Amino acid sequence: MSAEENVYRLIVACPDKVGIVAAVSQIVADHGGWLLESNYFSDHETGWFFMRNEIRASSLLIDLQEFRRSFTPIAEKYSMKWYIRDTAIQQKVVLLASHASHCLADLLHRWHSDDLDCEIPCVISNHQNLRSMVEWHGISFIHVPIGKIQKRPAFEKIMELIDSHGADTIVLARFMQIIPPDMCGKYKGRLLNIHHSFLPSFVGANPYEKAYERGVKLIGATSHYVTEDLDEGPIIEQDVMRVGHRHKKEDLVRLGKDVEKTVLARALRNHLEDRVVVQGSKTVVFD
Amino acid sequence: MSAEENVYRLIVACPDKVGIVAAVSQIVADHGGWLLESNYFSDHETGWFFMRNEIRASSLLIDLQEFRRSFTPIAEKYSMKWYIRDTAIQQKVVLLASHASHCLADLLHRWHSDDLDCEIPCVISNHQNLRSMVEWHGISFIHVPIGKIQKRPAFEKIMELIDSHGADTIVLARFMQIIPPDMCGKYKGRLLNIHHSFLPSFVGANPYEKAYERGVKLIGATSHYVTEDLDEGPIIEQDVMRVGHRHKKEDLVRLGKDVEKTVLARALRNHLEDRVVVQGSKTVVFD
Amino acid sequence: MSAEENVYRLIVACPDKVGIVAAVSQIVADHGGWLLESNYFSDHETGWFFMRNEIRASSLLIDLQEFRRSFTPIAEKYSMKWYIRDTAIQQKVVLLASHASHCLADLLHRWHSDDLDCEIPCVISNHQNLRSMVEWHGISFIHVPIGKIQKRPAFEKIMELIDSHGADTIVLARFMQIIPPDMCGKYKGRLLNIHHSFLPSFVGANPYEKAYERGVKLIGATSHYVTEDLDEGPIIEQDVMRVGHRHKKEDLVRLGKDVEKTVLARALRNHLEDRVVVQGSKTVVFD
Amino acid sequence: MSAEENVYRLIVACPDKVGIVAAVSQIVADHGGWLLESNYFSDHETGWFFMRNEIRASSLLIDLQEFRRSFTPIAEKYSMKWYIRDTAIQQKVVLLASHASHCLADLLHRWHSDDLDCEIPCVISNHQNLRSMVEWHGISFIHVPIGKIQKRPAFEKIMELIDSHGADTIVLARFMQIIPPDMCGKYKGRLLNIHHSFLPSFVGANPYEKAYERGVKLIGATSHYVTEDLDEGPIIEQDVMRVGHRHKKEDLVRLGKDVEKTVLARALRNHLEDRVVVQGSKTVVFD
Repeated sequence: MSAEENVYRLIVACPDKVGIVAAVSQIVADHGGWLLESNYFSDHETGWFFMRNEIRASSLLIDLQEFRRSFTPIAEKYSMKWYIRDTAIQQKVVLLASHASHCLADLLHRWHSDDLDCEIPCVISNHQNLRSMVEWHGISFIHVPIGKIQKRPAFEKIMELIDSHGADTIVLARFMQIIPPDMCGKYKGRLLNIHHSFLPSFVGANPYEKAYERGVKLIGATSHYVTEDLDEGPIIEQDVMRVGHRHKKEDLVRLGKDVEKTVLARALRNHLEDRVVVQGSKTVVFD
Repeated sequence: MSAEENVYRLIVACPDKVGIVAAVSQIVADHGGWLLESNYFSDHETGWFFMRNEIRASSLLIDLQEFRRSFTPIAEKYSMKWYIRDTAIQQKVVLLASHASHCLADLLHRWHSDDLDCEIPCVISNHQNLRSMVEWHGISFIHVPIGKIQKRPAFEKIMELIDSHGADTIVLARFMQIIPPDMCGKYKGRLLNIHHSFLPSFVGANPYEKAYERGVKLIGATSHYVTEDLDEGPIIEQDVMRVGHRHKKEDLVRLGKDVEKTVLARALRNHLEDRVVVQGSKTVVFD
Repeated sequence: MSAEENVYRLIVACPDKVGIVAAVSQIVADHGGWLLESNYFSDHETGWFFMRNEIRASSLLIDLQEFRRSFTPIAEKYSMKWYIRDTAIQQKVVLLASHASHCLADLLHRWHSDDLDCEIPCVISNHQNLRSMVEWHGISFIHVPIGKIQKRPAFEKIMELIDSHGADTIVLARFMQIIPPDMCGKYKGRLLNIHHSFLPSFVGANPYEKAYERGVKLIGATSHYVTEDLDEGPIIEQDVMRVGHRHKKEDLVRLGKDVEKTVLARALRNHLEDRVVVQGSKTVVFD
Repeated sequence: MSAEENVYRLIVACPDKVGIVAAVSQIVADHGGWLLESNYFSDHETGWFFMRNEIRASSLLIDLQEFRRSFTPIAEKYSMKWYIRDTAIQQKVVLLASHASHCLADLLHRWHSDDLDCEIPCVISNHQNLRSMVEWHGISFIHVPIGKIQKRPAFEKIMELIDSHGADTIVLARFMQIIPPDMCGKYKGRLLNIHHSFLPSFVGANPYEKAYERGVKLIGATSHYVTEDLDEGPIIEQDVMRVGHRHKKEDLVRLGKDVEKTVLARALRNHLEDRVVVQGSKTVVFD
């Protein structure tokens, strides 16, 4: 946990070439940087290279700003997309919820137990029923009703709130609304959803009903980044559980909650730990 | 295993009513029948009732023919679809294979180790490469080449072989050919396939390639009864395994083999033990 | 869910004989009883027979008291241990917790979301830290401090509270105290624990530390009925999750929470639905 | 697969220090080495560092012998235990089997399908029943009977055969004999076993019987390196499967076979790909 020890995370993506690891690790070592964890991945198909380093902050002899300056020539040489993040500064995560409580309650409990390293400036919902649960956690709850036909004003309001609270990451904790394209674009790679099926099965509405009708023996959940194409965004995490003929539709809904909340929590944790790198329509997950 | 002790299996499906269990179990008890295992299922949605009973053969005071006669009035009263099978008579299973060996080798090994209670009169393949493996098991191997365009004669031949070998059940052990509609119809509920994806994801050809492109975090396999609608038949068994960004297409193919062979073996075993009852486009599996 | 439709559950255990199913289902049918779900199990090793029936309450032409009278002769004839329960009357579940919140929070959330069909008259804890969370749910929180050496008075108090609240079932939601033998005996078959290992591995204290030291690739959790022999009681439910060399002791503790809470919730649900029958040192679970 | 492209694998273990990754990757890059895959692990508890690199052989401008010379000064500077292996040279794996066929048949089939990158010079068994299966694969089968009391001569013979066949790795594919201490010592880190329980549960003989008696809801298998302490060696891989009260002892034996063979195959594959590094009584597995 970053709580115990301050860590810098250096994330790099660039076209693969000989010498990248050497160049990056040399500059880290030159400034005394102690690597706590390192992960690399060469994608043979696309020819891209991905790297994640955890550096013990106290070991680095220069500050982050200076490190960034030192690193820039290498980054330019290898045409890197990169960033380094100081885990002492918690990310701000805004949660969007609707009526269902299970994912939201699970995330709030993890946060409250210090198992989720972030700040939650507010929860936004189009319903009021979860207000008291959210407020008990000391988090402000903002109600934004969404019209049945005129949804635009609500989403304007939601984006305004996300921005005014300085959100780094937005989580749709069973928000159940289709996100407008401009909002998808604005928060690209920072907007996580949990879909209640093992995608690409059962895209769209009522996946448990479809799963019941099809007679599948496994139900699942998928956490992915939201893009303009419904349920087509890069998948971060998936899991399934076994069901059988005895399970009615409402059993699938109930049983699925456990998969949904676990998958969303794992995806968010990996996202917050900078373990997820989007690569086209897919993800690299360094876990 | 039926090898240890002779068992009769009584399978019943009918519209649900009060008193069915009582009527069936009474007639079994009247003739001294000792129930080794019993499973029932009331489908609340369709109003159908399903039942599977294992009766110790040695406990029954009458023979099967007589039992069938005794049972007929009840069956008619409740409009039952039913059968009773003597496990002393092994089912005949014809395996259809193509080039890939993993499912076939797995089934043959289970059969050879007495873990699959059936007779395998022959293996039919459109390739020659698995002949020696099959023949080592003492099973006859029949090569039926399938034309690229003119496939009809081959399927005529295959149906002829299936019938002349008295097959009760036909298994497509990665047969990789689309079964013509009349063959689907002829062997309805007796023709098992293994599809190399967790259906309904990735219907049709090249599911691992599609899974790779989509970037899923789980791959799977599905065993189902073959119907005229490709990959739409009633699902018997499914399973998945975890994959990640490091896995290339060929890794998915390799890893998937383990899921495919396990899922097919479980499905076939349940089928042979009369544990699977087809109900419309779905199955009841009493396991 | 019993909430939707009132159900009677009839649970039977007796020495196996021909005719039990017929006798029981006949008497149910005689009184118009509609079976919603039925499960049987013949234990070939012990010669015992187990049965669980769900009867639609509205279909029964007589009331429960009368049914019990009707059933008594059969029960005596077959030397049955049996009971029938009206699901309209919720069971009372007292939860015992210590400092850790994950299992307690999970159970309370399920209860609060109507996914756990019971009444929770109170939560008893030897710490104060979870008071506010419990009270937010509208449940009374009772603090019973336990002395480091003199534990007896605390357990006297706890048993008194359990009894005065009319508890049918007691759940140790990571209570972390060894239950005295007389308390084990008093609530035999009604006292559930969650142990944070896949028993029988890592009995006793600090299982995650032991798992870390042993270098296992799976960690798990076990829910069982408490008996006088520590961690030796009949197992109700178990599950595991994959871990690796990168996981430190504190990671195992954190990751294990998800397994613990899921396993305990599944076990409690099965217990409350009368799906668990203790048979010596083992359980029959009709799920 | 190394079949497609020749690869050198460089494995390093040493006390952790700043600059190791930089030093190693620099020397690889200096000689034109293209990293296909890299994995590192810093063990915070022991202060050791572990590294596995896959280098595209064709990219290296010098041959292996020269590379070894170049690398030696760095290895000495950091007190490394290390090796580099050319995957063009297949490892030799000797399999030891007893009477049960499932693990052996599975490994042989994987090898025969080019899914296991090694040479199998012979299979040694204390029984004759698997001879024909082994020989069908074109592998020589050597029968070494083991006396009930005087086992020493047989183990002398087995060690002689292992050595004369130049075995790099020895696999106990359900060999069912306790390996004498000197043999454990001689092949330390190269002798893999599959134990039919999820260790440390059910150490020693008859684990399925013990699992049945204990009433566990999961059975499992464990592949580990053999050491002098029975079933205490470093664990490479484990897995489990769900069982229930309906499963008899013989069902556990049968069902467990699928877990055993899968776990052993995964462990062996990781071992052969130099993904497993023993660290005291535990393993680092770079998969």
